[in-house]
Amino acid sequence: MIIVMNHDATAKEIAEVVARVESKGLRANVSRGEERTLIGVVGDDRPIDGTQFEAFSGVEKTIPILKPFKLASRDMHPKDTLVSLNGMEVGGRKIAVIAGPCSVESREQILEVAQAVKEAGAIALRGGAFKPRSSPYSFQGLGEKGLELLAEAREATGLPIVTEAMSPEQVSLVTRYADVIQIGARNMQNYALLNTVGESNCTVLLKRGLMSTIEELLMSAEYILSEGNYSVIFCERGVRTFSDFSRNTLDLAIVPAVKKMSHLPILVDPSHGTGRREKVAPLSRAAAAVGADGLMIEVHHDPNRALSDGPQSITPDMFAELVQDLRQIAPVIGRRL
Amino acid sequence: MIIVMNHDATAKEIAEVVARVESKGLRANVSRGEERTLIGVVGDDRPIDGTQFEAFSGVEKTIPILKPFKLASRDMHPKDTLVSLNGMEVGGRKIAVIAGPCSVESREQILEVAQAVKEAGAIALRGGAFKPRSSPYSFQGLGEKGLELLAEAREATGLPIVTEAMSPEQVSLVTRYADVIQIGARNMQNYALLNTVGESNCTVLLKRGLMSTIEELLMSAEYILSEGNYSVIFCERGVRTFSDFSRNTLDLAIVPAVKKMSHLPILVDPSHGTGRREKVAPLSRAAAAVGADGLMIEVHHDPNRALSDGPQSITPDMFAELVQDLRQIAPVIGRRL
Amino acid sequence: MIIVMNHDATAKEIAEVVARVESKGLRANVSRGEERTLIGVVGDDRPIDGTQFEAFSGVEKTIPILKPFKLASRDMHPKDTLVSLNGMEVGGRKIAVIAGPCSVESREQILEVAQAVKEAGAIALRGGAFKPRSSPYSFQGLGEKGLELLAEAREATGLPIVTEAMSPEQVSLVTRYADVIQIGARNMQNYALLNTVGESNCTVLLKRGLMSTIEELLMSAEYILSEGNYSVIFCERGVRTFSDFSRNTLDLAIVPAVKKMSHLPILVDPSHGTGRREKVAPLSRAAAAVGADGLMIEVHHDPNRALSDGPQSITPDMFAELVQDLRQIAPVIGRRL
Amino acid sequence: MIIVMNHDATAKEIAEVVARVESKGLRANVSRGEERTLIGVVGDDRPIDGTQFEAFSGVEKTIPILKPFKLASRDMHPKDTLVSLNGMEVGGRKIAVIAGPCSVESREQILEVAQAVKEAGAIALRGGAFKPRSSPYSFQGLGEKGLELLAEAREATGLPIVTEAMSPEQVSLVTRYADVIQIGARNMQNYALLNTVGESNCTVLLKRGLMSTIEELLMSAEYILSEGNYSVIFCERGVRTFSDFSRNTLDLAIVPAVKKMSHLPILVDPSHGTGRREKVAPLSRAAAAVGADGLMIEVHHDPNRALSDGPQSITPDMFAELVQDLRQIAPVIGRRL
Repeated sequence: MIIVMNHDATAKEIAEVVARVESKGLRANVSRGEERTLIGVVGDDRPIDGTQFEAFSGVEKTIPILKPFKLASRDMHPKDTLVSLNGMEVGGRKIAVIAGPCSVESREQILEVAQAVKEAGAIALRGGAFKPRSSPYSFQGLGEKGLELLAEAREATGLPIVTEAMSPEQVSLVTRYADVIQIGARNMQNYALLNTVGESNCTVLLKRGLMSTIEELLMSAEYILSEGNYSVIFCERGVRTFSDFSRNTLDLAIVPAVKKMSHLPILVDPSHGTGRREKVAPLSRAAAAVGADGLMIEVHHDPNRALSDGPQSITPDMFAELVQDLRQIAPVIGRRL
Repeated sequence: MIIVMNHDATAKEIAEVVARVESKGLRANVSRGEERTLIGVVGDDRPIDGTQFEAFSGVEKTIPILKPFKLASRDMHPKDTLVSLNGMEVGGRKIAVIAGPCSVESREQILEVAQAVKEAGAIALRGGAFKPRSSPYSFQGLGEKGLELLAEAREATGLPIVTEAMSPEQVSLVTRYADVIQIGARNMQNYALLNTVGESNCTVLLKRGLMSTIEELLMSAEYILSEGNYSVIFCERGVRTFSDFSRNTLDLAIVPAVKKMSHLPILVDPSHGTGRREKVAPLSRAAAAVGADGLMIEVHHDPNRALSDGPQSITPDMFAELVQDLRQIAPVIGRRL
Repeated sequence: MIIVMNHDATAKEIAEVVARVESKGLRANVSRGEERTLIGVVGDDRPIDGTQFEAFSGVEKTIPILKPFKLASRDMHPKDTLVSLNGMEVGGRKIAVIAGPCSVESREQILEVAQAVKEAGAIALRGGAFKPRSSPYSFQGLGEKGLELLAEAREATGLPIVTEAMSPEQVSLVTRYADVIQIGARNMQNYALLNTVGESNCTVLLKRGLMSTIEELLMSAEYILSEGNYSVIFCERGVRTFSDFSRNTLDLAIVPAVKKMSHLPILVDPSHGTGRREKVAPLSRAAAAVGADGLMIEVHHDPNRALSDGPQSITPDMFAELVQDLRQIAPVIGRRL
Repeated sequence: MIIVMNHDATAKEIAEVVARVESKGLRANVSRGEERTLIGVVGDDRPIDGTQFEAFSGVEKTIPILKPFKLASRDMHPKDTLVSLNGMEVGGRKIAVIAGPCSVESREQILEVAQAVKEAGAIALRGGAFKPRSSPYSFQGLGEKGLELLAEAREATGLPIVTEAMSPEQVSLVTRYADVIQIGARNMQNYALLNTVGESNCTVLLKRGLMSTIEELLMSAEYILSEGNYSVIFCERGVRTFSDFSRNTLDLAIVPAVKKMSHLPILVDPSHGTGRREKVAPLSRAAAAVGADGLMIEVHHDPNRALSDGPQSITPDMFAELVQDLRQIAPVIGRRL
């Protein structure tokens, strides 16, 4: 951390800051420039909330140098983490395509979609049993019944299951059925939930929040890792901006950024990222081309009758065609599908 | 809801949309313009997720007309809701000033601050016992011990207590001690938590999320109200934007906007809204002048040693001076303090 | 346009709005719903600033239905516009790759880079002679000398030249040298400049502003088109958001959105869009995969010594490799390069 | 500037950066931490574009310490600049209220509004003769005729005139009539225009761009100051965010931030900042309470018939009442009106 003093900071103010740094067992390196005095903090200052120094008189600002995450950081763990999923490795050479409906609606629906996405090349089935909805009056998912149907679809197709838990008390139920437990964007900083899935040994798919920085995303993973669960996969699903022609703004540059800063794999969800069916295929191709470790795509056999997210769901035929495109793009970046 | 058809939508596409509208028990009013056909949906379409029509072929977009919230809406409840708090009414003529430290740190700290803010004119004491922190390595609050200290401070000063619960399972514990239970910004769409506090009969302070629209804020209140708890107070605490000279961008225009759309009271938290001590007083004055029903302000007797949020905490002296300013502003908008 | 009246709008208020609509030569279609009265405006209301009705008592809001642009709209001009550039057609099957340094710095530099990007497959040379810089103390470009060097590079390589004009009075000078005149992001709504390039017959590359909606982008094109210049190419170069790991947030979903709403071609500039060399290749691949009509990429033979934008410039070798990748992606979307 | 090297930067990489720093006549202070090597640049590095070092191999990032502006900075000019306007001093004790219609529409209109705002307490008259409009089909202002009418209104009322120029060639015309020349938000980084008004000796009202950081705003002032014109007044008028209940998000925290970083005065424009008549008064009060040096407010005698910005214009009666409120708030912050 660098502590930048005000233009006119006094010797006494500087001394007080230095004393506080040293009281934390760190070393303070004072450097007097022509216009500003800087205090460099030497040692591992991660456990310290640096902004506390901004409360000191004479301090202009503090600038963190070390990233606050350790377990999620590539600095500490240079090799890519490969997360096993039903025999394949997410983060490896093969691009992982996960597909399925937004919500599980009925046995017929989930079995039909599961079969279709499997045939097209999906390696896992997504489907919500517990649905976070902004309105209390909207369809909230089938709950445990939905989980049972997902398990039935797994048995029928062999596809592992990705499904969401919305609160700590749902975790043990959901992990009884799921192969991958999803933390939704709205819950990215639901720390009680992060701790609970961290204590489980279920693979976690952690979606980026609508307004989360990359550092916050990695810190949320740190919550899970620090509980001992190292099977974490990130998922970019769009952020909220002023831009209004898509539901969210898909921030694909986070893929190379995460790959540089962390060893954990990252998927892209172009369905939520765009919110519009006709944009799912183009942005899926873009996500593969940018180097994502996989995709998560909403597929529904009858989107007009979907109970949620119909406008962003593609049909099984569109999905099969899209997978063909992705197969052609994969080798360009040294991957396959 | 208005359903806007594409430029070249066919009669068959229009008919299919109309049929679906009518299948929901609503009426469809087709209006053929020169360049676009519009389908007006007549009746209460709130329980319907309008975007489902965007999945239909030939549909350009849907435009909601009715707001999706009912219980939180001023349309349905034109009179201001007054929320009782220890004898005063939040939302009434008196501006409610809530103050206290970010976190409860020790008996001495909380008692000293509580006494000071009471003397200066605060009507309630804030203080965190469970703290949401972006890093798992940061101080997470004293937990139940913190709640006990808050209760002790209430006994000593008579000030009611505002404190946060971060997960459904904390609610019963927190409401045993708190007069007002706070839902933090990161949890504004933690629906399990909203449902749980909705089932309690404790007053809820619902903070706006960093990325939440006004409609989402009101929908989150709707979750609480629809469980039978009508004692809800909103709190604006800044949104995240590109703007980088303050921690968040305090969006004061939400105060008149909420007053117009809802009957529930709204406070402003200039401490989180700005993140910098020297901006707390100016933005507090602005919040009072814009018509907020109250303020929530972080006060610490020794901000340099605060375990969290030191840079945005003001001292008891600064707080006392600020309350004097607010007292002068209140009458301008027909209020007092 | 739909005019939504307040919940409690009176008959008199409604009548006044209707009278004003009719005074504009349009028809008003009043539809009384259960909770809201809507007034549909029938006819071409584009020339009318709809928000003026929001100034009327009893009006809740107005909702535009028709897009305000005509000449730039695909509704009015369903076929793709192909913009000729030195024998090729931008917007056609071939992906147009434009490359070159941020600024023209010297004869050696521009000739070396021009030769290199030509060999790698670029179809035009970019290079700034007039540079918009946020600081008055930064290098502002070589001015006319830079234009002369660009012309020399064109002669040497046969590549047409893309370069920026920053003010109306520069237009005649710049168009004497340039094949394509660039309007920078900061000038997207510099209407005097738009009018001036609209009066020229030079092809215009119109970069999206940092904060511009798609509608504003198309309206800025409308300024140019309405002066009689139909050779307009859009360029997405990232928008400003809270996201801080790249210089801007590249909003690739605008590519299919523009293709749907307009007939004009659109390029992507991943150099400004990311601001970091190591992200240029991944985002370039993504831009091709999403369906962009071309790319504009900053290439410098010695980025460490570039006078501007060094950190986002790639070397000729990196560029040549990238073009190879793009060649493989192009057929996936039915294109070539 | 601090240059942060990568975790695994080599000695050679460090030496190359140091050599480049020294080649610029600056000193490099290398500090080897446990996890990162930092290179502090000692001396005035403002003229150097720091990001150029990010193009070097082994560099993680650069962190500027000195602000890039000098003339606009309070560091260099600790005393408040007072800008004279018709006998009063903007930036002094008196809050400067500027009011008038969005556009000059007719002699009757401008004279009537001018008279009304003068009586209510305005110290200057605003009114647009050249109007930047996002649509080429919207009313673009009366041009020189509008300037003549403004001059007539000045003669009739004694109020100085604030009006906009949109391009460098308009500046000499506009300054013939105007007392204060306005640079609109869309032109905040129109450098040719900034240079031209910098060369004039007319007071400049510089509006913050929709997506501009505080540093960019101060740098735009630096363009004007560096041409020798020191009469610059800032104006906050809202930024663009995801927040959708007001036209823009008024970012009032910029007022204390500008006061801290610069010596120049700053006004607030709550009309554009909110876009809705009913929010103008509350946000005006907030702007005064936050410490703005003045306000700029759109007033129209018949907003329903305004040719532009009707929905955000208040009537003369509303304005007069608002000024009364502001008079009561002023003393709270040691000012008057």
